[in-house]
Amino acid sequence: MGKKGEKTPVKDETESMKVSKSGDFSEWYNQVVQKSGLADYAPISGCMIIKPYGFAIWENIQAWFDKKIKSTGVSNAYFPIFIPERFLKKESEHFEGFMPEVAWVEKKDENEEKYALRPTSETIMYDSYAKWIRSWRDLPLRINQWCNIIRWEVKATRLFLRTREFLWQEGHTAHATEEECEKEVALRASQYRELVETQLAIPVVMGKKSRSETFAGADYTIALEALMPDGRGLQMATSHKLGQHFAKVFNIKFMDKEGKEKMVWQTSWGLTTRTIGAVVMVHGDDKGLVLPPKIAPVQAVIVPIYDNKTKSAVLKEGKKLEKKLESKFRVHFDDRDIYSPGWKFNEWELKGVPVRLEIGPRDIKKKQVVLVRRDTREKNMVRESGIEKAVEKTLELMQENLYKKAKAFMSASTKEAKNFEGLEKLIRDRKMARALWCGYSECEEKTKEKTSATIRCIDGEAKGRCVVCGKPAKAMVYFAKAY
Amino acid sequence: MGKKGEKTPVKDETESMKVSKSGDFSEWYNQVVQKSGLADYAPISGCMIIKPYGFAIWENIQAWFDKKIKSTGVSNAYFPIFIPERFLKKESEHFEGFMPEVAWVEKKDENEEKYALRPTSETIMYDSYAKWIRSWRDLPLRINQWCNIIRWEVKATRLFLRTREFLWQEGHTAHATEEECEKEVALRASQYRELVETQLAIPVVMGKKSRSETFAGADYTIALEALMPDGRGLQMATSHKLGQHFAKVFNIKFMDKEGKEKMVWQTSWGLTTRTIGAVVMVHGDDKGLVLPPKIAPVQAVIVPIYDNKTKSAVLKEGKKLEKKLESKFRVHFDDRDIYSPGWKFNEWELKGVPVRLEIGPRDIKKKQVVLVRRDTREKNMVRESGIEKAVEKTLELMQENLYKKAKAFMSASTKEAKNFEGLEKLIRDRKMARALWCGYSECEEKTKEKTSATIRCIDGEAKGRCVVCGKPAKAMVYFAKAY
Repeated sequence: MGKKGEKTPVKDETESMKVSKSGDFSEWYNQVVQKSGLADYAPISGCMIIKPYGFAIWENIQAWFDKKIKSTGVSNAYFPIFIPERFLKKESEHFEGFMPEVAWVEKKDENEEKYALRPTSETIMYDSYAKWIRSWRDLPLRINQWCNIIRWEVKATRLFLRTREFLWQEGHTAHATEEECEKEVALRASQYRELVETQLAIPVVMGKKSRSETFAGADYTIALEALMPDGRGLQMATSHKLGQHFAKVFNIKFMDKEGKEKMVWQTSWGLTTRTIGAVVMVHGDDKGLVLPPKIAPVQAVIVPIYDNKTKSAVLKEGKKLEKKLESKFRVHFDDRDIYSPGWKFNEWELKGVPVRLEIGPRDIKKKQVVLVRRDTREKNMVRESGIEKAVEKTLELMQENLYKKAKAFMSASTKEAKNFEGLEKLIRDRKMARALWCGYSECEEKTKEKTSATIRCIDGEAKGRCVVCGKPAKAMVYFAKAY
Repeated sequence: MGKKGEKTPVKDETESMKVSKSGDFSEWYNQVVQKSGLADYAPISGCMIIKPYGFAIWENIQAWFDKKIKSTGVSNAYFPIFIPERFLKKESEHFEGFMPEVAWVEKKDENEEKYALRPTSETIMYDSYAKWIRSWRDLPLRINQWCNIIRWEVKATRLFLRTREFLWQEGHTAHATEEECEKEVALRASQYRELVETQLAIPVVMGKKSRSETFAGADYTIALEALMPDGRGLQMATSHKLGQHFAKVFNIKFMDKEGKEKMVWQTSWGLTTRTIGAVVMVHGDDKGLVLPPKIAPVQAVIVPIYDNKTKSAVLKEGKKLEKKLESKFRVHFDDRDIYSPGWKFNEWELKGVPVRLEIGPRDIKKKQVVLVRRDTREKNMVRESGIEKAVEKTLELMQENLYKKAKAFMSASTKEAKNFEGLEKLIRDRKMARALWCGYSECEEKTKEKTSATIRCIDGEAKGRCVVCGKPAKAMVYFAKAY
């Protein structure tokens, strides 16, 4: 503070929040994402820029999931972003499903083939699978890629949630038997669930999609659905049983142990950068972001408090504290001289850093550190000698608490609808409705028309009467409006 | 061996090499890349598929370099692949340089802007830099991204070396002063040099590019140039001083400590997947790939040798050996029952795995393991108790030896040309020529016309006479044909 030049630093992203989460949720979301430095609108209609702070969250998600899938037989690879039109057309459901959102490359000359920018990579990858797979010894084949995906949506941009380009991972496996294929679909769904619940601290319901929401070209899709504070469902990840749809059109065969030619069984599964949007919505508060410690780019920030007389002693002590913590935690020492401690507190709260450590001359004398926890804003004095333990414990408690809070919200916001009026009321009241369903798409469509809600996923088989038509029910399902 | 089904496994990628490196270098390269499982041609003209084995090398390169740049102030981010035409056009040199290779997205409607697929991201990133940078406190700004790049080349595809899509990292920094900017250019060049020499085991010459080879829109470019066995130079990485070219056209200004408005100084620097092609060419031999241990996806492979009687004991011992080594090395236990040991030896040699460990009943009795080193094909008996040390030492020696061999080749293949005839002869003889140059592009062009060689980089200032025109020389340069 007090250097030459501007006295009052102004930076858009670090201005405080101008709306409350309960006041204007949509505007709150936009402000949090931009002011915390997660992302920005791109100068291209429908696109976003993932800024370093947001990308660091993605890197933490990647690191966890990449290790997980590699420990269960998956290797990474890279396939072209260009997909020949004739490939996309091979599986008719798949083509129809993606066609409206496909972006094409301008041809350099008339004789050239027409190329799409990948909206997903099944077709380009399975053309290779057909060449690479010869015998049972080549199975299972499990390949994943982390890449950019293009879907030319017409709706307005929502940072992380709806953009024409996003990042994801897509896993693609081929198996000798249907049983192995189904086990794979379930394994990847369960790994997603572990990622989302233990790392992002977001509870989900998980189950098959109804036919109309199933991936274009799949036998069935297992979805993980989270509930946002505005009562809308958000799909966190999906795992598809492709069965033999693509194997048939791409001719992916193998010689089995008895020397008989057979079709492979396939799965694909993906998780995108939109999960970061869910983290923002589920955990954030009126002060800004609140990040689950396990994926927070900075887990603890040290803010020194000093005047001219105490400056050098406090900075020295702060540096020592950073050194002490940095082998165990992602720690940042905010020694910028131009900002006041109060200004820094606001900035790091806005950025959702789980733990703030304050250190001033009095604390040094008393061999203590002030520890402030982001979610509860609890403030505690901690003995300097016990600081590592205290930070570790606080991060654990906060991770746990975020999940518990979100889980409690989800439970309180999920109610059973006994009839169609009940369903309508629940959706109006921004709840997720559990209801019996006959299994016919007519009832799904009618519900969507009247309430804007769709079936997020199927909870399981069930008996009784469909809440829409009153005919015998086949399943208990979750209805909610969706992102 | 001896299961039902096919008796003789046939897999394209594991067939042995059909040509020698010295016989038909170009065909040898194609065969090594494909048969070792690094990469494959894509069904899209000019594109490639990076297969798991090749991608794992890229991941090792990424891991090392990512850590390096993060420890020196760089953060990762992600910018859109789409670049508005008006952005590309802003810096005229830049636009002209990239225009011929730009691929465009087909417009969805006539009113839409025209978008290019990024051939490099200076323009899209600096539009944001102009918004994000306000004062000296925002500097230096250092952002990197790992992404795909599109350059629509017309020449025939060469796997890793010349493809319409490739992967890279691009770092983009902004600084308050020219001095800092130049320090950054040098820092990144030196980090590339460390990566290439210590990890890829490839020696380079490093220096500024001549004007005609300088990055479109830069003050100067520092290039790292390696020499391939066929006498051609291959650019391993570049670090550009952009100076204020882009700052001017994108209006990237900051308020300095005295409150005065100034332009920033910028750098950009990149390294691509083509470096993997250099690894193949420099180290490979007639048996296939030879991978530097530090970037090898598998550093040691264990091959068990057994008959029906000894099978279970040998497999058990092999498993134990794997367990023992896996915490320190990237180790693979090849316990496939269908292939003979000899077949496996061939496959792993083709794949360039640095160390092969053979274990049979006699070895178990003698408490020993047979260790075979890939580059020298030296075979040693190692006491089972000392196996970790032996593997570690062998990997170190091999890493060192690969570099030394490549360095010796480079030294022997780099000769000084005293006059133009000498230069012509050296290039004809597939050497890299060190020669004096006057600094004028006419002499560069004449050399290119007559010999196909270009200036790979400038070695430094020097006095004497230009080998082309005989006028006073300005610099000593390296001439070679280039990939």
